[in-house]
Amino acid sequence: MGPEPGRGGGTPLLDRVHRPADLRGLDGSTLAALAAEIREFLIAEVSRSGGHLGPNLGAVELTIALHRVFESPRDRILWDTGHQAYVHKLLTGRKDFSRLRAKGGLSGYPSRAESEHDLIENSHASTALGWADGLAKAYRLAGRTDRRVVAVVGDGALTGGMVWEGLNSLVDQDLRVVVVVNDNGRSYAPTRGGLARHLSARRTAGGYERMLARAKRLREVPVAGAPLYGALHGVKAGIKDVLAPQGLFQDLGVKYVGPVDGHDIAATEEALRQAARFDGPVVVHCVTRKGNGFAAAEQDELDQMHVVRPRSADGAPPPADWTSVFAEEMVRIGAERPEVVAVTAAMLEPVGLQAFAERYPDRVFDVGIAEQHAVTSAAGLSAGGAHPVVALYATFLNRAFDQVLMDVALHGCGVTFALDRAGVTGSDGPSHNGMWDLSMLQLVPGMRIAAPRDGARLRAQLREAVAVEGGPTAVRYPKGPVAADIEPVGRAGAAEILALPDGPGDVLIVAVGPMAAAALGAAGKLAAEGVAATVVDPCWVKPLDTGLLTLAEAHELIVTVEDNGRVAGVGAALAQAMRDAGIHRPLRQAALPQEFLAQAGRGEVLEQAGLTAQGIARDVTDALARLRATDQEEEIL
Amino acid sequence: MGPEPGRGGGTPLLDRVHRPADLRGLDGSTLAALAAEIREFLIAEVSRSGGHLGPNLGAVELTIALHRVFESPRDRILWDTGHQAYVHKLLTGRKDFSRLRAKGGLSGYPSRAESEHDLIENSHASTALGWADGLAKAYRLAGRTDRRVVAVVGDGALTGGMVWEGLNSLVDQDLRVVVVVNDNGRSYAPTRGGLARHLSARRTAGGYERMLARAKRLREVPVAGAPLYGALHGVKAGIKDVLAPQGLFQDLGVKYVGPVDGHDIAATEEALRQAARFDGPVVVHCVTRKGNGFAAAEQDELDQMHVVRPRSADGAPPPADWTSVFAEEMVRIGAERPEVVAVTAAMLEPVGLQAFAERYPDRVFDVGIAEQHAVTSAAGLSAGGAHPVVALYATFLNRAFDQVLMDVALHGCGVTFALDRAGVTGSDGPSHNGMWDLSMLQLVPGMRIAAPRDGARLRAQLREAVAVEGGPTAVRYPKGPVAADIEPVGRAGAAEILALPDGPGDVLIVAVGPMAAAALGAAGKLAAEGVAATVVDPCWVKPLDTGLLTLAEAHELIVTVEDNGRVAGVGAALAQAMRDAGIHRPLRQAALPQEFLAQAGRGEVLEQAGLTAQGIARDVTDALARLRATDQEEEIL
Repeated sequence: MGPEPGRGGGTPLLDRVHRPADLRGLDGSTLAALAAEIREFLIAEVSRSGGHLGPNLGAVELTIALHRVFESPRDRILWDTGHQAYVHKLLTGRKDFSRLRAKGGLSGYPSRAESEHDLIENSHASTALGWADGLAKAYRLAGRTDRRVVAVVGDGALTGGMVWEGLNSLVDQDLRVVVVVNDNGRSYAPTRGGLARHLSARRTAGGYERMLARAKRLREVPVAGAPLYGALHGVKAGIKDVLAPQGLFQDLGVKYVGPVDGHDIAATEEALRQAARFDGPVVVHCVTRKGNGFAAAEQDELDQMHVVRPRSADGAPPPADWTSVFAEEMVRIGAERPEVVAVTAAMLEPVGLQAFAERYPDRVFDVGIAEQHAVTSAAGLSAGGAHPVVALYATFLNRAFDQVLMDVALHGCGVTFALDRAGVTGSDGPSHNGMWDLSMLQLVPGMRIAAPRDGARLRAQLREAVAVEGGPTAVRYPKGPVAADIEPVGRAGAAEILALPDGPGDVLIVAVGPMAAAALGAAGKLAAEGVAATVVDPCWVKPLDTGLLTLAEAHELIVTVEDNGRVAGVGAALAQAMRDAGIHRPLRQAALPQEFLAQAGRGEVLEQAGLTAQGIARDVTDALARLRATDQEEEIL
Repeated sequence: MGPEPGRGGGTPLLDRVHRPADLRGLDGSTLAALAAEIREFLIAEVSRSGGHLGPNLGAVELTIALHRVFESPRDRILWDTGHQAYVHKLLTGRKDFSRLRAKGGLSGYPSRAESEHDLIENSHASTALGWADGLAKAYRLAGRTDRRVVAVVGDGALTGGMVWEGLNSLVDQDLRVVVVVNDNGRSYAPTRGGLARHLSARRTAGGYERMLARAKRLREVPVAGAPLYGALHGVKAGIKDVLAPQGLFQDLGVKYVGPVDGHDIAATEEALRQAARFDGPVVVHCVTRKGNGFAAAEQDELDQMHVVRPRSADGAPPPADWTSVFAEEMVRIGAERPEVVAVTAAMLEPVGLQAFAERYPDRVFDVGIAEQHAVTSAAGLSAGGAHPVVALYATFLNRAFDQVLMDVALHGCGVTFALDRAGVTGSDGPSHNGMWDLSMLQLVPGMRIAAPRDGARLRAQLREAVAVEGGPTAVRYPKGPVAADIEPVGRAGAAEILALPDGPGDVLIVAVGPMAAAALGAAGKLAAEGVAATVVDPCWVKPLDTGLLTLAEAHELIVTVEDNGRVAGVGAALAQAMRDAGIHRPLRQAALPQEFLAQAGRGEVLEQAGLTAQGIARDVTDALARLRATDQEEEIL
């Protein structure tokens, strides 16, 4: 990280802005000074708290312009993938960034609870046109044609199919929606595909000389790990395309304004005003620079400081995480199995495929933010003889449930899903928690799911998964430092016993994946209280091994522990298997409540849900006490 | 339906075609005669068996041309929304249409079990480019550049976001894929939106004089219920667009060939050969006419005989179905509640929104085949003050799980989902059965789900659902004739008791939605055997009313009956509620096996799954016998 700018000068201009209306009387040079203050504020605050720095540094002037041209909240400014909304927060009166993304602090995304200026809290990309379409329809029906709807979408999110569906619908209904494309040429990684080429051609076709010069400078920033960047951005587009007077948006019937330099407030305002005068859907193409104005971010070759982590107290390097274990093992598997390929949806580095991509550049496919295509394309890869590993954040697999079910599973394709950030992620709020996968995937016929408890198991189970042909497999693991290896002390079929009491067990604790450590901790606490607990890791949580049923039958109480929603997860699956086998033993589920969980640290969320050694032990003693009281009652009767 | 052509002349040419290679030696006039034979065959056979007639009549010449230019199965011809593949079946040796879509007969879609020429069995639209992308990548990796990949996509399916994602990826990887757009201007209804306008402009921009004349004739077919049709197809597109030398596909970097008359075999072959010579992705735009060559279909103003039903023996009109009850009630609700609007994904008529659209044309939104957009747009409509009813076939809601969860539920939007064809549909095979919704929606926080048992309940619960603001609701009902009304004999909280034995009950049968009749039948059979059964309908299956728990505690055995997969449905939810309440009673789940169910009649599938009076009664007596044997054993011990 570069030198940290001081905040010695304070933020006198920003201090005078409490609401968007306060911006409207300011002149050009004041606005430029305000932008500088905001940038300084963001660099200082976000470097400390952690958060999405690069995207927000790129959106400072654009956000100021938006709030001068449109009147929020009468007009609705919708932020797609809301991590670009920090400046918007500042301009709408939210300036305490001290607890950004922490429990009780500002959300890292728009939040209706924070402000009437916010609407979309969903941090999943490409949804804003859908929201805009619905809002504009509703306003038209209500005769509120004075209310304008503006959707701000990054070029990275444009690759998502919902944008196509949204544009098509906006045109069909001729809705007055302004779509601002905040084009920095990247999401995490450079945006790819036909659309990126088209935008690039547009960038250079507008005849804006200053713009052109700036764009050229932007293109000269070297980007590591993206050898196709140049090719994708104009080089391959023929001269005909570059000079084309029309474009894709016009072809679809959407008016197009741009390209405009999104760091030039006056030019951006002029483009937005022009767009606001149209009576139908219109795209304003703003070219911005991620990390703009912060040398350390501009020079960050990987992702222009897309996200910065909170500064650690001692400056020690972060411990190895689950992602890096996956990354290493993928490289090894790749060496042994040439048919293994990898698929990512615009998150090559975050999901740990960078090393695989460097080693086997022909065997990794970044399809852009397009989870549905990632999954169906993987089905095609499998049908063509490859074995794809689709690496996604767990929460984003929800976007391709139908494709997992109807393309991969129905067709018996050997596709492996590597689900990172499964379980609680915490600080990114409800839409990032990966608490749905263990339930959703239970519905998929033939799906096999591994939940590794530690690094050794992640390596082994990933190998087992990739060896399965004829049907889908999933390996899911959480965010954060990888758990220390825990060796089994015994087996029950394919399940591994992690703790076995000397005598007969009172309670069987079924620990899913990373919950093993907490379960073992609980067993220790219980032993001290005279309760004998067996701890077992099913390893593969779908299908459940019958060895687990034999174990269950030998205990008075079964407690399942999983970092997944309570509904339809592993606990529910075991309960069903027990019912089907006629094993009538009480089963308790320790799991996440089936609710949208407010942002907080991962540990805080797990603790609140009782998914700690303490919490599990308490659950067990409570449940045993109740059971024994009932038994006694029945004996007395 | 028009007069049925006889098959007096037989099919001498078709009889000589056993595989695609047999087509290659034939001359132009023979091919035309073959096309006529195929058309005659389809009209006779499909009129008898029922099935997708219109789309296949429109694809006769195109399919012949495809199989002459490409060498299946070395080359892969992928049919998007496979109901357009009947001609492909005939040309690949499958001519026994006598049991089309029936148990043991030919599938209504491609089927790998039937032929090596088939791949995609998934009848959900817009997936073929994903498959093509994966296959082409795999072939390239394997060095099999001789294998061509061809995706045949209807213009209706182009509105799906996966097409956008797929095109983007094909260009990014410069894959040798031929995308044949089979453009008949419609899916069920005329294709809508910006894309449709663009295709229309292309149709008239090619300078193919004959083509133009034909296209003009096509446009003159009057289309009922689609007043926007003319506007969408060229009239609104400015002269600039019509004369545009370039198009959307080129903008994205995809080569474009066309438009070509898809009923002219020679012209289509030439276009396909030209496309096959390109070394990257290329679109061949074929204009066809749904129902072509069958006057009755061409003149069918609604949908050109998209689907015909099997001929009934007595010619009696079909009985009222669930869809028509929904249709009527929506019109009534619409009259009372001006803020209620309806959303459909290209299925206005099949989901029963035609009458609502005629009455309130401004309040119905057909977004095209774009379920994700339908749902997120509904969230926007709700945020803008409307109350949208999103009417879909249940299986297609799977395509928008993330949007239901993250847009509608997380934002607490009052959106009602009307899920038609929930449960078993049968003859359309595994991808049409609506057996996932009751499970998938259990995961969604705040979701409320009604499963009406009869027409009266459908009306009432739809009203209740539409009255809920602040969160999503779903009403799900099956295919087919609506069940006769069954009045309750009592209540248990919000649950309705349908049958109550005189004395204490042995078994509680929890009947979900349309399973009520079978459950009552089972209770009757059980009474004859001396088993006292209480039958209860939860009415709202999420959340479950606590009255149900009180009832459950009063019975020896609980059996839940639902036309949904066994995993995570209503049975599992009740079991969880009982566990949480400390009620330890055995519960059995009668439900569909969690498998992809082979095509058969709806009744046949339900019977096979034991979801009949007989099957439920047998389940109950078996379970009681086992329970009592165990109790006795324990007593003896």
